[in-house]
Amino acid sequence: MKMEIERKFLVKSDSWRKSAVGINFRQGYLPTGDSCVVRIRTMGPEAVLTIKSRTVGISRQEFEYAIPGLEAEQLLNSVCELPLIEKTRYQVRYQGFIWEIDVFRGENEGLIIAEIELEDENQKFSLPEWIGQEVSDDPRFFNVNLVKNPYKNWRKAH
Amino acid sequence: MKMEIERKFLVKSDSWRKSAVGINFRQGYLPTGDSCVVRIRTMGPEAVLTIKSRTVGISRQEFEYAIPGLEAEQLLNSVCELPLIEKTRYQVRYQGFIWEIDVFRGENEGLIIAEIELEDENQKFSLPEWIGQEVSDDPRFFNVNLVKNPYKNWRKAH
Repeated sequence: MKMEIERKFLVKSDSWRKSAVGINFRQGYLPTGDSCVVRIRTMGPEAVLTIKSRTVGISRQEFEYAIPGLEAEQLLNSVCELPLIEKTRYQVRYQGFIWEIDVFRGENEGLIIAEIELEDENQKFSLPEWIGQEVSDDPRFFNVNLVKNPYKNWRKAH
Repeated sequence: MKMEIERKFLVKSDSWRKSAVGINFRQGYLPTGDSCVVRIRTMGPEAVLTIKSRTVGISRQEFEYAIPGLEAEQLLNSVCELPLIEKTRYQVRYQGFIWEIDVFRGENEGLIIAEIELEDENQKFSLPEWIGQEVSDDPRFFNVNLVKNPYKNWRKAH
């Protein structure tokens, strides 16, 4: 179990892409109530099952377990809610921090989100020039909500 | 992933108890929709997380992962639905089969259920003399439903 503190931003340019290598992610969620999230995720050949408890501010409890890739595919294809989240994740180092940049495909095509993980909620960090608007507190950008209401449904309104 | 085929009976006498050794189980369920079950279970010092897909007849898909006991306790105490299921499980061998006998405590005190796991739905087996009524198809006896509507609420009507 760990506490997870993340801040999340839109990405406004492509300048981060030079030399960044991406890994394909495919993930889905079991149909749960609002008090927790159960996520199945494949990352290239690896797979994890993650349980997140209710969000309190931007901190929450997280439990993560490696599971066999084949079983993760079975869970994604037969038990998880549709559509699945499909994205390529890139990692970019900037002034001592690692930014994770998710380029979505499928129902969320066109959405690019950059995340940084912090050790405490007040930790200082510098914003790369390709960072756009912060969306940490906007629930539409939670991956679990991008299943229920994909970006293609509301991108024009944004 | 395995397919699980179980038949379930009430227990009508105590004659199985001689020399049977029990292990304490504590288990709970994450709040999910009807299409799957996510169970956290501690068995003595061990713990497992199990995902079961929608029941079709008495067969269903099951995915099971060992998890650290301390994390299982945290999930039971902070994320699972209440009341938790508390029971002692005994194993009794009878004519080549192992029966698992669950003696419930807490909100389900008074309920004793014997289960046998089969390789196919038509496999033949002998009933020990302490076996009572079969309840395989009665959803009230599913452990997940013993959380929502514990035995103490309806035992007098049975």
